[in-house]
Amino acid sequence: MSQFSDVSVIGLGAMGWGAAISLLRDGFSVYGVDIRQEVLERFSAEKGNPCQSPAEAAKLASVVMVFVVTDKQVEQVLFGQDGAVAAAEPGTLFINSSTIQPSSAVEIGKRLESAGMRVIDAPVSGGAARALRGEVTVMASGSGEAFKIAGPIFDAISAKVFRLGAEVGQGSRIKMINQLLSDVHIAATAEAMTLASNIGVNLETMYEVITQSTGNSWMFEDRGAHIVNGDYAPRSPIDIIVKDLGIVSFEAESAGAAVPLTNAALALFSEARAEGYGREDGCAVAKLLGRKSDTALPGVKDRSQE
Amino acid sequence: MSQFSDVSVIGLGAMGWGAAISLLRDGFSVYGVDIRQEVLERFSAEKGNPCQSPAEAAKLASVVMVFVVTDKQVEQVLFGQDGAVAAAEPGTLFINSSTIQPSSAVEIGKRLESAGMRVIDAPVSGGAARALRGEVTVMASGSGEAFKIAGPIFDAISAKVFRLGAEVGQGSRIKMINQLLSDVHIAATAEAMTLASNIGVNLETMYEVITQSTGNSWMFEDRGAHIVNGDYAPRSPIDIIVKDLGIVSFEAESAGAAVPLTNAALALFSEARAEGYGREDGCAVAKLLGRKSDTALPGVKDRSQE
Repeated sequence: MSQFSDVSVIGLGAMGWGAAISLLRDGFSVYGVDIRQEVLERFSAEKGNPCQSPAEAAKLASVVMVFVVTDKQVEQVLFGQDGAVAAAEPGTLFINSSTIQPSSAVEIGKRLESAGMRVIDAPVSGGAARALRGEVTVMASGSGEAFKIAGPIFDAISAKVFRLGAEVGQGSRIKMINQLLSDVHIAATAEAMTLASNIGVNLETMYEVITQSTGNSWMFEDRGAHIVNGDYAPRSPIDIIVKDLGIVSFEAESAGAAVPLTNAALALFSEARAEGYGREDGCAVAKLLGRKSDTALPGVKDRSQE
Repeated sequence: MSQFSDVSVIGLGAMGWGAAISLLRDGFSVYGVDIRQEVLERFSAEKGNPCQSPAEAAKLASVVMVFVVTDKQVEQVLFGQDGAVAAAEPGTLFINSSTIQPSSAVEIGKRLESAGMRVIDAPVSGGAARALRGEVTVMASGSGEAFKIAGPIFDAISAKVFRLGAEVGQGSRIKMINQLLSDVHIAATAEAMTLASNIGVNLETMYEVITQSTGNSWMFEDRGAHIVNGDYAPRSPIDIIVKDLGIVSFEAESAGAAVPLTNAALALFSEARAEGYGREDGCAVAKLLGRKSDTALPGVKDRSQE
């Protein structure tokens, strides 16, 4: 293994945790940062090296991966107090795998390069289970030199890497478009299932027909099955979808682009969050639609009985 | 071939024409009805038997297929002046392959059964090209006896038949749900493509990534390719989509079901129709979104230069 066998992972949430565990499994020394002490303890039990700040982790590794939730958090862990950048050696590779505004990804990339760092813009998708198996999809852009360093790291954490050119920002842009479609399709799946149930269609039959017809989507196939089975365990929770579609809506407005479907889906997910479904899976908008439509979906209790 | 080798096809539009030609190819005697004389002449040239009214056609065949556009037209050709039902022998099999309100399909089915007729509710999907090759998908419900008669006919016109139980109406309901998803996905595809183009993403790269990611759908794969290639030739024109989504919206409202994504898509397709795109393919909503966003899509000229 090269000199780049020490990797820091900042943010040990669902995706960061999976990446860190996958790197450990592939023989990397991994330095983990999280604000939750119990997560650091769990990480230590997995033979990871817990650190108390991004600065401490950045000093110990030549690659720093960032898996936090918001633009503000990325800025904080990189450039804030005890941030990674001031502590890192010049030439350190920063891989930003947080899903943030593409315009922020561009700006943060520039600041990192100005500080003498290497950068890859590399948001990931796939959910917690695939992250743990080292099988996420990476949508990445950055220089060839940076990709050479990142190769074994991406091998450890992902099943598929899309290399989207040298310009930092392209990874985040295409991830954002994928998010737009995925989340609109989740909402459409929930709407189709609720309406079908409402008008007396057998959901299993409908699922079988649609998955072989022009109405099919990756999300219908996946989340549609969950709704048929009454399974709302969070793969991608509504709180995160509201954030992700908020990025689409904001970026579209900045660019002057019309996104009526995104806005309709965002309104629906936001309402679901306001109604207390934020930590459930995205397909739980079906519960909200079911209540509005007075429709009983499989495995969903009347809310007054919950 | 049985006594049911004579089939009348009422309505020789894109789908009815394809069914009639496919039946002729399989050796049926086919009686065609259309209000356009030039279509009847073309039908005659294909060795079909043109008829001047539904009544005339129903007298000559023991199976009557209906491929018209609206509920009103179905009622007219069946029960109106020179309609098929009054002229048909009792026991004639009526196959309604028009995409109409499920509630109308139920009501029409009951009236046909009261008149002593056999009924299959059998909307089709697949577009004109597949119809011509005898490869549509049929979503059908009706009695076992009716299906026994319809077997060779469905074999001639379709690649796949979903048999959805005995209750007339289930075919139309599941077709409607498929339409909801297909049309919302077309709108989402157009929105994703326009936004990507607007923020400087290469559409071919984006298409390649999305078709292998969670944002994929049958429609993204199909219509997305058309947008990348600037191809807006009508597969399923906006005029028809406005009708189909109008059915979803109306049926949902009658049932008290909330369909926010359907309504957002319907508003977009309706606006596109009002702007003169009605006869273009559904994915031409990308042109409308492109204009609103001031974005140049492949093969789309500035409208002032059209």
